[in-house]
Amino acid sequence: MQTVIIGSGNVAYHLVKAFKQNNIEIHQMFGRNEAELLKISTEFNIPFSTNQLEDAELYIIAVSDSVVENVSELIKNENALVAHTSGSLPMEILKGNYRKASFYPLQTFSKTKDLDYSKIPFFIEAENQIDEKSLFELASIISENVETSDYEKRKYIHLTAVFACNFVNHLFARAKEISDSQNLDFNYFIPLIDETVEKIHHLEPKLAQTGPAVRRDERVLKLHEDLIADEEHLKIYKLMNESIKKMYQ
Amino acid sequence: MQTVIIGSGNVAYHLVKAFKQNNIEIHQMFGRNEAELLKISTEFNIPFSTNQLEDAELYIIAVSDSVVENVSELIKNENALVAHTSGSLPMEILKGNYRKASFYPLQTFSKTKDLDYSKIPFFIEAENQIDEKSLFELASIISENVETSDYEKRKYIHLTAVFACNFVNHLFARAKEISDSQNLDFNYFIPLIDETVEKIHHLEPKLAQTGPAVRRDERVLKLHEDLIADEEHLKIYKLMNESIKKMYQ
Repeated sequence: MQTVIIGSGNVAYHLVKAFKQNNIEIHQMFGRNEAELLKISTEFNIPFSTNQLEDAELYIIAVSDSVVENVSELIKNENALVAHTSGSLPMEILKGNYRKASFYPLQTFSKTKDLDYSKIPFFIEAENQIDEKSLFELASIISENVETSDYEKRKYIHLTAVFACNFVNHLFARAKEISDSQNLDFNYFIPLIDETVEKIHHLEPKLAQTGPAVRRDERVLKLHEDLIADEEHLKIYKLMNESIKKMYQ
Repeated sequence: MQTVIIGSGNVAYHLVKAFKQNNIEIHQMFGRNEAELLKISTEFNIPFSTNQLEDAELYIIAVSDSVVENVSELIKNENALVAHTSGSLPMEILKGNYRKASFYPLQTFSKTKDLDYSKIPFFIEAENQIDEKSLFELASIISENVETSDYEKRKYIHLTAVFACNFVNHLFARAKEISDSQNLDFNYFIPLIDETVEKIHHLEPKLAQTGPAVRRDERVLKLHEDLIADEEHLKIYKLMNESIKKMYQ
């Protein structure tokens, strides 16, 4: 399928890279951010435009949720298949007389970080079975881990991902603030963090819980509360411990 | 040094295993829990007792913080060096006329999960330099990553670890509740979780943040709040997003 990728952010960048690595041709990149498009276009040798959208069989819209609808209106080709890449939007957000779909890769993407695309789960939805099959086959070139998913399922996948990824990263960022405040080397904590994640490859997270809250060590909980200087840290500390206690009561 | 390890929990088990793997002899295991001591004793071929503490040069007390003081009173050997393994106790918690120390391995231990001990940071403190050097050398047989640390530093290391490990694991447990509630396969999220951690090997956690809160996507935040059925999940969802917004304001 002749494919146009729209967007120049983290998801667009990694889709382009994943396609290229697997020798899937990209007809054009399209977007607003000329500087970013130029960088990606140069790295992967793909034509780009900020104003002239080429005709194609498949358009993949990899832009922020808030602009997917506006961007979708730019596509006038009624014979095309158009897919967005969002976990939190229905196919119906796409506004045009074309066939609609969703092509959702479940991963946290940063341009500066290489990824093994073969492990990334892709969730596919389309209005008809032929398109679903085409997108499923396309994703299967990139990844071993492709499933179909309707919007209901996709929403809960995204919500779970926010807990398991975005909030986890925020805890790392807050932990580093505490560590930095005492001039500790944050590298001390990397083997611990690695093992925390390694554990849940083998154990239910609920069974892997350690720490003062789960063993009801009120002395340590109080000691830590007295150590914490930052109000945001204290709010997180108290709520997470309360939540741990409730899970194991 | 002739060494007795006191305790039969996760830390005691892994210390014994780490010593054995590195051919460091353990003179005796001592504790209250006969069933657990018997298991460890059988696995590693070490004598144990629940009532007769042997004479030794070094006693390592690897028991819950709340009983370290009581256990320390059982040691009557005034020529011994006695070390606890807690991140949140001073050496002075040890009550006896012997030399005191702390021997703190920074890791999350579960008996059912193998570990690479060579990467675990050990933090050493002793009342005098000779003992500090002995314990430093002992830990260095096990790990490449040994440092001295006073109680002030140890407390903050433990506090940081609670954020970076215990709370992170709890987020995995809560994420799995959401995933289970929709009959999603939690394995979908393992590549995402792996990458979340892999990222912070290369990027500052603060620079690696993704998700709806950091990009101020109020529509998705509201959508998720409406999806969440469990009050505990909602409390965590709101607090973590507020905290992310404050970090990037």
